[in-house]
Amino acid sequence: MKQQSKARAHTNIALIKYWGKRDNKLFLPMNSSLSLTLDAFYSETSVELSDSFEADSFILNDQPQNSQETAKISHFLDLFRQTAGIKTAAKVVSQNFVPTAAGLASSASAFAALGAAMNHATGLNLDLAELSTYVRRGSGSATRSVYGGFVEWQMGTTSADSLAVEIDDASWDIGMITVAVNTNKKTLSSRDGMKLTVETSAFYPAWLESAAKDLVSIKEAIHKQDFQQLGEITESNGMKMHGTMLGATPPFSYWEALTVEVLTKIREIRRQGWQCYFTMDAGPNVKILCRYSDAEAIQKLLTTAFPDNPVIISKVGSGVKLI
Amino acid sequence: MKQQSKARAHTNIALIKYWGKRDNKLFLPMNSSLSLTLDAFYSETSVELSDSFEADSFILNDQPQNSQETAKISHFLDLFRQTAGIKTAAKVVSQNFVPTAAGLASSASAFAALGAAMNHATGLNLDLAELSTYVRRGSGSATRSVYGGFVEWQMGTTSADSLAVEIDDASWDIGMITVAVNTNKKTLSSRDGMKLTVETSAFYPAWLESAAKDLVSIKEAIHKQDFQQLGEITESNGMKMHGTMLGATPPFSYWEALTVEVLTKIREIRRQGWQCYFTMDAGPNVKILCRYSDAEAIQKLLTTAFPDNPVIISKVGSGVKLI
Repeated sequence: MKQQSKARAHTNIALIKYWGKRDNKLFLPMNSSLSLTLDAFYSETSVELSDSFEADSFILNDQPQNSQETAKISHFLDLFRQTAGIKTAAKVVSQNFVPTAAGLASSASAFAALGAAMNHATGLNLDLAELSTYVRRGSGSATRSVYGGFVEWQMGTTSADSLAVEIDDASWDIGMITVAVNTNKKTLSSRDGMKLTVETSAFYPAWLESAAKDLVSIKEAIHKQDFQQLGEITESNGMKMHGTMLGATPPFSYWEALTVEVLTKIREIRRQGWQCYFTMDAGPNVKILCRYSDAEAIQKLLTTAFPDNPVIISKVGSGVKLI
Repeated sequence: MKQQSKARAHTNIALIKYWGKRDNKLFLPMNSSLSLTLDAFYSETSVELSDSFEADSFILNDQPQNSQETAKISHFLDLFRQTAGIKTAAKVVSQNFVPTAAGLASSASAFAALGAAMNHATGLNLDLAELSTYVRRGSGSATRSVYGGFVEWQMGTTSADSLAVEIDDASWDIGMITVAVNTNKKTLSSRDGMKLTVETSAFYPAWLESAAKDLVSIKEAIHKQDFQQLGEITESNGMKMHGTMLGATPPFSYWEALTVEVLTKIREIRRQGWQCYFTMDAGPNVKILCRYSDAEAIQKLLTTAFPDNPVIISKVGSGVKLI
């Protein structure tokens, strides 16, 4: 056989955080989460299946990847190959348009794009909900990148129903700004941070209860298009996730000095009348949910305060697409 | 009648934090706490009772205090006067040897010293355990300042048994260093911070459970003189308290940019082999539990890193004393 497909997927930022796995192998989460897909950051990946290839190969951002990196991709592609009943080797060529300077992870868009391309190349043509259960096993947050706008990742009961659901296309003046505080590699990966939290945090059971309630409330806010409620829940849920880390043994934190300054500045901008709410993932960088029509003005205030830090605006992104 | 007494009391730093009241009027805490009394910071207060005084007066650090401040003191002195069956007015003269630059609260030593002086002046001569239930009603943390060394404030079941208990005189090479990050008045008082946490934090019930366990463990560590365990529980309990604030609605934090830098530096000093563990109260300043014999070396490392911030060593302090 010989087939080639190419897909684009955007990254997403969780407003209700995914924080902890109940199954490390299947990437089943401890709680349901909800995100906003971002237009500004994406991956484009092509998959070529050919009987003439002896083994899988993987080129990322024009760089051939070593056997260890390629093995991860092979393992992921196997999920599709098993279902399709084929063993054909693949050539994967991927480009991440998630600038390192933005301080964002690219794994969500990367696995969503790769999964979408592989889905088509193999002829499986799974629908997006089912596709999301496959890309989940590359990276948990990739689950949500199959759709655009506001997307829920339902924790489900098995691997088959731990999937993405479209909630709203977020076409009501929604934007996001990222402030890069430090773009170096983290000393503690998200994976290790969430594991330590699940295993030791005094606050973890309360986090799970609270995240479940936050999810119900944020869906109400989205349904009513109540931006303030949306923002307040986003900010509160994100800080709670960081609070769980202070409850771990030993306690840890992804915050840096500049993180605190950025959070303080955002509160100040909000007091000046701009609707803006922060959230943070497992790292020192800060993301701000705002009205897209306000984004440039807010960006200007932030750039004035933090001239050395990239401040990047994004509008709402769409789901995976073959290109 | 005419009586005069003068007492000294030292401040204390909680290793297991007091965070939340179950009775705002009686200052009954939601959880038991445990502290270390510090030698370097103290208050000296004289109380003169005389039938010739028309009303209470209060001089603090050589400054006559206004009627609002004096009323707080009168209210506190009434507790003793009621028990003693007298109505004699008092002249209170107090000096706080808690330098503003240290970024520490003086209310613990202030109310402990005032209570001890009043206890003697009225002739009540309550024992220290009972005295601690009186000073508690001036400021919760004052409860623990009646004793030296490691002191437990047992939450109790009523006002009469919510009192201080001597645990250990801490004469086994224990010291504390304070790093003043910001000594301006806080925008959110401890009282308001703990109230918001008790009322809204998703993590508050878990905090209470966890603090109860930490108290058991830290008393074991003290009994065994296991400094590492003592330090690890101290650091973990303090961070948990700060984690409860990130679980509040709205989330809040006392951390400043420099706080994060100081915590990072202490972790670095620890990796270099020094036994030192941080804790923080409801403010941006950092306290470090260490071996007293290591304190100067650690102070030097901190002063080099933060030349603009006061870094003050204290040895272990003693309980209230008439002077």
